[in-house]
Amino acid sequence: VSVRAGDPRAIGVFDSGVGGLTVLSELHRRLPNESTVYLGDNARAPYGPRDADEVRRFTLEGVDWLLRQDPKLLVLACNTATSQALDAVRAASPVPVLGVVRPGAVAAAASTRVGRVGVIATAGTVRSGAYPAAIDEAQSSIVVSQQACPDLVPLVEAGQTDDDAARAAVAGYLGELLLADPGIDTLLLGCTHYPVLRPLIEEIVGRSVAVVDSAFTTALAAEDLLDALTARRVDLRPPTRRIASTGDLGRFSAVARLLADGPLPPVEAAELASD
Amino acid sequence: VSVRAGDPRAIGVFDSGVGGLTVLSELHRRLPNESTVYLGDNARAPYGPRDADEVRRFTLEGVDWLLRQDPKLLVLACNTATSQALDAVRAASPVPVLGVVRPGAVAAAASTRVGRVGVIATAGTVRSGAYPAAIDEAQSSIVVSQQACPDLVPLVEAGQTDDDAARAAVAGYLGELLLADPGIDTLLLGCTHYPVLRPLIEEIVGRSVAVVDSAFTTALAAEDLLDALTARRVDLRPPTRRIASTGDLGRFSAVARLLADGPLPPVEAAELASD
Repeated sequence: VSVRAGDPRAIGVFDSGVGGLTVLSELHRRLPNESTVYLGDNARAPYGPRDADEVRRFTLEGVDWLLRQDPKLLVLACNTATSQALDAVRAASPVPVLGVVRPGAVAAAASTRVGRVGVIATAGTVRSGAYPAAIDEAQSSIVVSQQACPDLVPLVEAGQTDDDAARAAVAGYLGELLLADPGIDTLLLGCTHYPVLRPLIEEIVGRSVAVVDSAFTTALAAEDLLDALTARRVDLRPPTRRIASTGDLGRFSAVARLLADGPLPPVEAAELASD
Repeated sequence: VSVRAGDPRAIGVFDSGVGGLTVLSELHRRLPNESTVYLGDNARAPYGPRDADEVRRFTLEGVDWLLRQDPKLLVLACNTATSQALDAVRAASPVPVLGVVRPGAVAAAASTRVGRVGVIATAGTVRSGAYPAAIDEAQSSIVVSQQACPDLVPLVEAGQTDDDAARAAVAGYLGELLLADPGIDTLLLGCTHYPVLRPLIEEIVGRSVAVVDSAFTTALAAEDLLDALTARRVDLRPPTRRIASTGDLGRFSAVARLLADGPLPPVEAAELASD
């Protein structure tokens, strides 16, 4: 694994769909001089319901496309891809690879006072047990309660982040989580779509529960990694920002606009191996 | 900057003296299969009172010695060396370099609910402003209050971690800090000696203030970095653990025993360039 000092190459960001754009936004905010190239495998999203072998194969195909763009660092900005394929991607990649699970888990472990953390995520991520395992690895003896929130991704992708339906869904899920463990003092957003719901979630959960979002923490981890390797881009010319997608580009752009931090560049079409 | 997959080489740990042994202990605990080589520049410790140029020159000499041992990763386990020399070491090193300041700052930012953090450290670290700057970089708008605790290192090095003198000193310093900002809910231990005082500190500060220690968080960061680079040692033979010091080895061993996590290996004599 080799990275150059002041490496001008882009950070490659992979997601099964649009959720990873919240991670991309945080990367842009923290590392404004870095070039980025984002790939969303929207033709085959969501990965959640797929079995582990398929997730691994699709993720490796996406990573293969990103590696052909010559990045200096890969970020798996997808909880499903991270929990099922991070090890395989790391084994296949000549550049360093970060996932979204560990940074969120470490921050949640640092945040909790009482040793009780709640995680909300998709059904697939909850089932994978990736967050309880990662939190336990960061600091054992923390009790983790999970709540699957299947309706939240469709709501976010429909642009409903603050209406009555969103409010009812978030309140319902958080109610169930707090019923399972009324003592949690930290809530980890274990899905890259959820940061756009953060104001609503914070309002409902109240000030006694700290909210940790893995988009924010993953961008911090990317910054740490580039600094440890002295690999921040030092070029004075403006960085490039590319976004690519498989499948229907028009539909992707419409939804992507809801999660991105600003105007999107023209979306490129990507074709993956078995797509 | 280049690291091999499954890299069998040691993690090099540098400190001006013995404090970095708390970081070494955490590295051993989290990464038990890694070889380590520790260098304490005890002949010239402490670095705190020295000017920035001298700290940088001494640190680079220590790092030069460690690089001759062929490590895969360097950890500056010293707050003074990190705040004055991290950039210079990174510029000079062919392997990745971690300091102790950023990991503690990120954890403190994740920990605080009210956005008010207290930092206790040596006079030199407080003066450098390294922690307020790093906490602000991790998350702006956090208010940081600092308290210099000049008596704590001598107490720890005299083996006094739980007697009346230690209790009075810790209570006095924390009292001053809480006078400056009674609203802090997170206390960052900004000196590598302080983790051995942690039980006493936690008792005095009470359960409403979370204690963050940079030895623990730096070991987590080392784990993250090795994983991102797939550079954990996979060798099935036991790892090697070396400790070296400049100056009086007998005196070093006597004090080191108070901060290490187990029996020390025979301490090697190191000679630095201008030592």
